Amino acid sequence: FSLNLAADCNAVLKALQPIFQEQGMTETVHNWEDHGYLVTYIKKNGSFANLRIHPHGLVLVDLQSYNDDMKGREEVDQLLNKVEERMKELFHGNIKRVKRLPAILRGGVIDRYWPTADGRLVEYDIDEVVYDEDSPFQNIKILHSKQFGNILILSGDVNLAESDLAYTQAIMGSGKEDYSGKEVLILGGGDGGILYEIVKLKPKMVTMVVSNIDQMVIDGCKKHMRKTCGDVLDNLKGECYQVLIEDCIPVLKRYAKEGRMFDYVINDLTAVPISTSPEEDSTWEFLRLILDLSMKVLKQDGKYFTQ
Amino acid sequence: FSLNLAADCNAVLKALQPIFQEQGMTETVHNWEDHGYLVTYIKKNGSFANLRIHPHGLVLVDLQSYNDDMKGREEVDQLLNKVEERMKELFHGNIKRVKRLPAILRGGVIDRYWPTADGRLVEYDIDEVVYDEDSPFQNIKILHSKQFGNILILSGDVNLAESDLAYTQAIMGSGKEDYSGKEVLILGGGDGGILYEIVKLKPKMVTMVVSNIDQMVIDGCKKHMRKTCGDVLDNLKGECYQVLIEDCIPVLKRYAKEGRMFDYVINDLTAVPISTSPEEDSTWEFLRLILDLSMKVLKQDGKYFTQ
Repeated sequence: FSLNLAADCNAVLKALQPIFQEQGMTETVHNWEDHGYLVTYIKKNGSFANLRIHPHGLVLVDLQSYNDDMKGREEVDQLLNKVEERMKELFHGNIKRVKRLPAILRGGVIDRYWPTADGRLVEYDIDEVVYDEDSPFQNIKILHSKQFGNILILSGDVNLAESDLAYTQAIMGSGKEDYSGKEVLILGGGDGGILYEIVKLKPKMVTMVVSNIDQMVIDGCKKHMRKTCGDVLDNLKGECYQVLIEDCIPVLKRYAKEGRMFDYVINDLTAVPISTSPEEDSTWEFLRLILDLSMKVLKQDGKYFTQ
Repeated sequence: FSLNLAADCNAVLKALQPIFQEQGMTETVHNWEDHGYLVTYIKKNGSFANLRIHPHGLVLVDLQSYNDDMKGREEVDQLLNKVEERMKELFHGNIKRVKRLPAILRGGVIDRYWPTADGRLVEYDIDEVVYDEDSPFQNIKILHSKQFGNILILSGDVNLAESDLAYTQAIMGSGKEDYSGKEVLILGGGDGGILYEIVKLKPKMVTMVVSNIDQMVIDGCKKHMRKTCGDVLDNLKGECYQVLIEDCIPVLKRYAKEGRMFDYVINDLTAVPISTSPEEDSTWEFLRLILDLSMKVLKQDGKYFTQ
């Protein structure tokens, strides 16, 4: 509850107290004098509640309980409804905002919380752990979501879901490129999405270079991300493609030296690379090196795509 | 912390206690006997921590503090690092999972949490409240996100962001339809996205029917969702379109009676309608009625699109 005015901590406590006591919860009050109250309510079944009253007009209620079932949720909703009602009686029109957040589930078999790269909390509708393996380089998870299909998660970082065809289409130029008869180089892309989509377009030859760091990513994806990669990862060679399990930098250097040129270079390496060689002493150095080497293997009218 | 074994509550308490006491926090222990411990640590500055030890092997640490700044966050990280380190010393290889969630920010000017329709917690990178008005029917918010542009939120339900061109394209048939010279009827779609995209394709005439419930949605969108609607909402009539502010059911009935026929009917009404007439006594009844009436105004080779 955000209020438009200062909160009389004692008045809030007295107003809400009966709601918790009706539940058979025992009360412990801490009074900071200058920072308001923390009231802890403890129930016999192991549940508890924190009521934090900030004198400048912020009242926070947290409930924590174990073995959440639908009945438990209904009880929580009823309790919070009573708290909301009582607060509205107490403050009339002076409540600026009431916000109730969904329960956070911890300690379950399935972890539904996968924060974004910029640190935002996002809960997915995960209903199955499909693959969960540690390679020497990273943890590789594939989790099933009702909304997104299987989702590839590398060391906690959400990479790609089977529903993310739009990502693959965008990095290929949003349907505006003609790949037929073309020479294409893919850097990274171990999930096989780009390779699968380009092979459909009858290119002359696609070479995909995936670091051995991602060998287990390929293993997981070829089994469990088939909406993304189809069958292209079943073999490392097809009629018009090959997959090289090698660090891309020496491969690019070799191609540049040999004068091997491409119509398209698609850089699908992870945004923050896992460093394996002393050359890659910073992210920007690494990105610049990849870009410089890519330009050297690109035909004059060739195109470079990346995130 | 999810453990592979039962937790000795007292051992966990003794191991972690010094970390909180170093912070000058005072301890209160509640022992349920059969449900483990709740330990509350209180700091002089108004911060506090809950340590909940479940004997079957789940240890939860919650920190709550006011006036979160970067320094405060670093201190929290350091404290949690110490807790993690101590837990790993205590349980060696027997920790199944350690999960640290981003802080939840409450009571700020900007609310970043907009749960999905299926109740999942999602935090957006909102940095500005662009529009926030109550109509007699609903609350209409337009919030700016760095990632998605302006986002339209109706009574807490995330509707459409400026980045959601893919939604509009999908409901129009994913680029596979030829709208040139066609008669089109749009039901709902007050954000103007479908209208704007179809008008670009030189239709003969587009009629959009928006309930007066959504008049303020139009007002907000025409000002603040211009990447979605361009200038089509600036006037209710254009060269090849008209917007009717009317309930769609009487309009559909009138058209059916007059024999007015369309090449396309696009139903972009909200999934769960706000009921205004006794006819709409249930969601399914309403959906069936709309579908039946739509079929009556559709040419024999016409197409009906919806979510």
